Amino acid sequence: MVLLVLDGIGDLRTLDQPRTALEAARTPYMDALARRSALGRIVPAGTGITPGSGPGHLSLFGYDPRSPEADIGRGVLEALGSGVEVRPGDVTARGNFATVDGSGKLTDRRAGRIATAECKRLVRVLQGAIEARPIAGIEVQLTAGIGYRFVLLLRGEGLSPRIHDTDPQRLGVSPLEPQPREPEAAATVGKVKQVLAVLQEAVVDEPRANRLLLRGFSVLPNLPRLGEVHQMRCGAFAGYPLYRGVAGACGMEVVPCGKSFADTLAEAERHWDRFDYFFLHVKGTDAAGEDGNLDAKVAVIEEVDAQLPDLLALEPDVLAITGDHSTPAPMKAHSWHPVPLLLNSARCFIDECTLFNETAAIRGHLGTFPAQDLMALMLANAGRLKKFGA
Amino acid sequence: MVLLVLDGIGDLRTLDQPRTALEAARTPYMDALARRSALGRIVPAGTGITPGSGPGHLSLFGYDPRSPEADIGRGVLEALGSGVEVRPGDVTARGNFATVDGSGKLTDRRAGRIATAECKRLVRVLQGAIEARPIAGIEVQLTAGIGYRFVLLLRGEGLSPRIHDTDPQRLGVSPLEPQPREPEAAATVGKVKQVLAVLQEAVVDEPRANRLLLRGFSVLPNLPRLGEVHQMRCGAFAGYPLYRGVAGACGMEVVPCGKSFADTLAEAERHWDRFDYFFLHVKGTDAAGEDGNLDAKVAVIEEVDAQLPDLLALEPDVLAITGDHSTPAPMKAHSWHPVPLLLNSARCFIDECTLFNETAAIRGHLGTFPAQDLMALMLANAGRLKKFGA
Repeated sequence: MVLLVLDGIGDLRTLDQPRTALEAARTPYMDALARRSALGRIVPAGTGITPGSGPGHLSLFGYDPRSPEADIGRGVLEALGSGVEVRPGDVTARGNFATVDGSGKLTDRRAGRIATAECKRLVRVLQGAIEARPIAGIEVQLTAGIGYRFVLLLRGEGLSPRIHDTDPQRLGVSPLEPQPREPEAAATVGKVKQVLAVLQEAVVDEPRANRLLLRGFSVLPNLPRLGEVHQMRCGAFAGYPLYRGVAGACGMEVVPCGKSFADTLAEAERHWDRFDYFFLHVKGTDAAGEDGNLDAKVAVIEEVDAQLPDLLALEPDVLAITGDHSTPAPMKAHSWHPVPLLLNSARCFIDECTLFNETAAIRGHLGTFPAQDLMALMLANAGRLKKFGA
Repeated sequence: MVLLVLDGIGDLRTLDQPRTALEAARTPYMDALARRSALGRIVPAGTGITPGSGPGHLSLFGYDPRSPEADIGRGVLEALGSGVEVRPGDVTARGNFATVDGSGKLTDRRAGRIATAECKRLVRVLQGAIEARPIAGIEVQLTAGIGYRFVLLLRGEGLSPRIHDTDPQRLGVSPLEPQPREPEAAATVGKVKQVLAVLQEAVVDEPRANRLLLRGFSVLPNLPRLGEVHQMRCGAFAGYPLYRGVAGACGMEVVPCGKSFADTLAEAERHWDRFDYFFLHVKGTDAAGEDGNLDAKVAVIEEVDAQLPDLLALEPDVLAITGDHSTPAPMKAHSWHPVPLLLNSARCFIDECTLFNETAAIRGHLGTFPAQDLMALMLANAGRLKKFGA
């Protein structure tokens, strides 16, 4: 089984953009595949709900993205997205570099959107400070993100993530002290205060960013492991940390690969005998959509299409091509629109669709259904589900 | 209201079978009806879920097939399917004739798949033995099934079905002793052991099958009775025991009829004034699908179509034609694929479908929806549902 995710593939038809990216792209191989496949559309998180990448992928993997256990905290998401290895029990938080005035009141929650290079320098300062003055029983790891963002990871025994944000989300007030959300988190909060004191002192005289804000304290979600639930070996092939992280949190084995689809595909081919379920991730479609660049999105689709024969040559029993959500170029953002889906297998029901795009998918055999049902559909097509009842 | 179930009607379009059975069949009457009806598709038990006949029919009758109370045990299902009258409180189990070696270890869980005639002879031996040595307070009834299968029915006061299988599901070990699943079942287990001792002794020297295995101890499901829930008189017209049994378990009055559609229809006509809701069952479509015989499936559909005018002459207020699941000929088995539905009534919304088949149904007014909602749709079309709220 292969799940090929073209991130944010779904697009819009508007008065100014009369064709979606899939409609504008020249995709002879996808269209040929569509002629012997079933099309449909998936709804990632609910009608009208725009999902982030976490919920979008969790639903593709068969989880209910709205269930409490599927709630991946902002700290963990930022950590996974930054390539940080998060272990069970680690508490992570998303950090902002910020500025305060002489009286300690916030003047900029993003420190003038400092450059990433400056962020990296500041993170080195922080890491040096905490290594010079370690806090007993707690390991502290800092990782620079894009611009003013960083990740704080705490490792130790019995840590709790039930801690309120220190970011007050407005200016002219002092940052908040860490506070426990429940009494059991008091000990962890004590440690966090000690850590923060050391880190804070290290940047208090920095000219560009003299304050730290933390939010989204969280641990890895406790999700059932895909491979155990469905008795299969799952491999994730993604060029970007966030998608590796989400796949890893679902219990997939993450096989690092380069950022190009050619690279992703080559790795999948190399590991073809090791897994029953392959998650292949293509980031470019989403990035182009976020940029509002239809041409770039079309180019990524055409690049994938050109290499589709190599994927088909592996002869997967089941191939699903879809996205984790729509990222319409006119919106320059994720959206709630249903995502086109192509499903190919010997038992898929060949419908009358002759192209792979949003408009064809509306009329496909698969109809429009919740993305979290895709996993069952793929398993059924693979002959891996037993009959229900006699 | 008439629910005409063409069992397993849904089929596939594959590279080797480019048309489904409904597409291949010449169905002038169904197609004419489609032109003044609404089409759609029903999903019996969930996306990707392949239902057995029990869950498939329960969903057509408006029950949630995945709810615990809709779980029809294997023993009851086998009993109903064998034409055994199961009363409330009766405990049934599915039996296998098996073979053990000199040390009592299982050598064949199906006794070399003995012929049905041999099974019938052995069941007569068992029945004779238990009648010669009856167990106080418990009535025992044995019924031969196909091949190595039989049904054990126990009737008495306060019996519990909470008993583990005696079939260990593997060879080289001894069959298991009946064990209670909960302490309250201990008394029944005691009776079962007494019964088994008598039965076992009766076949211990049989050359072909010298051991009995039991599984799926169960009682009739405790389903709300359709007629009471919806204030209507329900009649079931089916030529095969299993479907009579499921309908009976839902509280329908079962009107036995022959196996041909002509017979089923004639019985329905004879009882036309006695019921508000008619369940008519056609088995042939499923049987042909299970055989992988598209031509036979087409022939059954054409046979039903030819007699459709007789059904329409009865002028039902509401007529739904559909199936309990798909049984695509290429798969020779039940499948998860949505099932086409035709709904005719004076208020059904005449959509643009001009044929009754899977491909037309994709585009129908009714869309694709859970099969368990069909009952409400039929009741609504019959004007039997009140407005919800003011």
